[in-house]
Amino acid sequence: MPSHVELAAMRRAIGISATGLGRTSPNPPVGCVILDQEGAVVGEGYHLRKGEAHAEVNALAAAGDRAQGGTAVVTLEPCNHHGRTPPCRQALLDAGVHRVLIAVMDPTSRGDGGASVLRDAGVTVETGVLEDEALTVLGPWLTATTSGRPVVTWPYLVDGTAVRALPDELLAAEVLRQHADAILRPDGRVTEAVPDSHGPGILHLRDINPAVELPAAALKSIHGGGVRSLLLSGHADLGERFASAGLVDRIVAYLAPVTPSSEGYSGLPLPGLPRGFRITAAGRGSSMVRVEAEPI
Amino acid sequence: MPSHVELAAMRRAIGISATGLGRTSPNPPVGCVILDQEGAVVGEGYHLRKGEAHAEVNALAAAGDRAQGGTAVVTLEPCNHHGRTPPCRQALLDAGVHRVLIAVMDPTSRGDGGASVLRDAGVTVETGVLEDEALTVLGPWLTATTSGRPVVTWPYLVDGTAVRALPDELLAAEVLRQHADAILRPDGRVTEAVPDSHGPGILHLRDINPAVELPAAALKSIHGGGVRSLLLSGHADLGERFASAGLVDRIVAYLAPVTPSSEGYSGLPLPGLPRGFRITAAGRGSSMVRVEAEPI
Repeated sequence: MPSHVELAAMRRAIGISATGLGRTSPNPPVGCVILDQEGAVVGEGYHLRKGEAHAEVNALAAAGDRAQGGTAVVTLEPCNHHGRTPPCRQALLDAGVHRVLIAVMDPTSRGDGGASVLRDAGVTVETGVLEDEALTVLGPWLTATTSGRPVVTWPYLVDGTAVRALPDELLAAEVLRQHADAILRPDGRVTEAVPDSHGPGILHLRDINPAVELPAAALKSIHGGGVRSLLLSGHADLGERFASAGLVDRIVAYLAPVTPSSEGYSGLPLPGLPRGFRITAAGRGSSMVRVEAEPI
Repeated sequence: MPSHVELAAMRRAIGISATGLGRTSPNPPVGCVILDQEGAVVGEGYHLRKGEAHAEVNALAAAGDRAQGGTAVVTLEPCNHHGRTPPCRQALLDAGVHRVLIAVMDPTSRGDGGASVLRDAGVTVETGVLEDEALTVLGPWLTATTSGRPVVTWPYLVDGTAVRALPDELLAAEVLRQHADAILRPDGRVTEAVPDSHGPGILHLRDINPAVELPAAALKSIHGGGVRSLLLSGHADLGERFASAGLVDRIVAYLAPVTPSSEGYSGLPLPGLPRGFRITAAGRGSSMVRVEAEPI
């Protein structure tokens, strides 16, 4: 059983892991905290950007010798493959960590991941620690990885009877909150959701032709380009096409203001939530109502 | 069974009801859509502000004669009491509505609310229609009404080792999203969360002395003043006092930036989520990580 200190460390690891959202794809946003033998925090780290060091390596670098005999608390199973960086399970073994707590198992490891290698080397490994809480950050990556297509969000505005693209200022605010990797434009261009000044973007994609291409084929291609979280932008046709194919995971709909008067209301049409979607959140912005919906 | 059109109307009613969040207390934020005999939308309305017309009355005013023989779709059981306005169930009867769909029953009616009166008058009434979805808007009001204290949110910032009040710009953004009625300041003043230019505020409260008063007594007094949703502002002592008394329903914690370097990370302390809270959401703002947590 994890101790209270270890649970607090996992929550810290989950919190800092969110720093990588929208930056790490196709890698997952992971966080890690190192505790020494007495349970003191001696290092923490997260994966900030594809191609840079993984969370465990950053956390171990901060801990230095103090990791010896200590515990690594990490939101995703440490990797067991030689990619751009050496496997993280080896870094943990080299640092002399005696105990590893993991929230979410890596579905790509197929039981042959870092956890089993660590156990074989005599390290105590606990898995599923605060898994639900870790999925608040890792969920979209996990879904995209297991489904082979990006998680798709369709944001739109209902203005009178018309369903329109979200204005830029709202889209910018939503992008930050939704941590999307990329935006599919109505002309078929796939662009970064939040341009990253630190390095090359993740996108080296051919353009999509959304008027001709099947949504599933377009998403497979976009996934192949490294995108795990996608926003649909532009006119309603694009979103409706993906939604009717069952390929929209989340809707963010803004309803334009309704002005009360002594005669009541002018009778806006229904807001155009497509059939098969349920409201998961509803709130008020400064001038519009914002509704989130997911497939039933 | 509600039809597809009726379910869409309920989702519309839920969406527009959110317009009232933070404005209607101690009344609930309710929405209503009127369908005519053929199922066409002929009116909609919501409760915008305490003392003004209820959702059903606004929707019926928009519908006019077209409500005759039609259906009222409403997020909360219509009221059965003469307050500042006549009972809504009477307005529905006077308009000749034949069918009423309700998402959430009013706990204050104790079985003697509008639903039973409508049924006695021969109207078909269905309850619990998309109740979970309606609770995305009505949930805090319902919790506050049944518990006798406001729903309490504690927002804070973790800056190094210190837990601080949220800066004004973040607090303003959060207030809009959280739809709080009021803010409890560290000096004991209770102020409106979002000043309303349209009318007198809901707050005519004596000041609280949070250094002396028990949190439960303070909340009872604030509830008595009409507040159903409260933000704790100011230094950490205030929040920690309420949290340790089990009187915080939601935490919104911002973690100040962690700057990666080639040496790893400087080792911030754990973020100070109080024991007994679990992460329900984690995301990235433009410069900070934002973590939401609720009691376990």
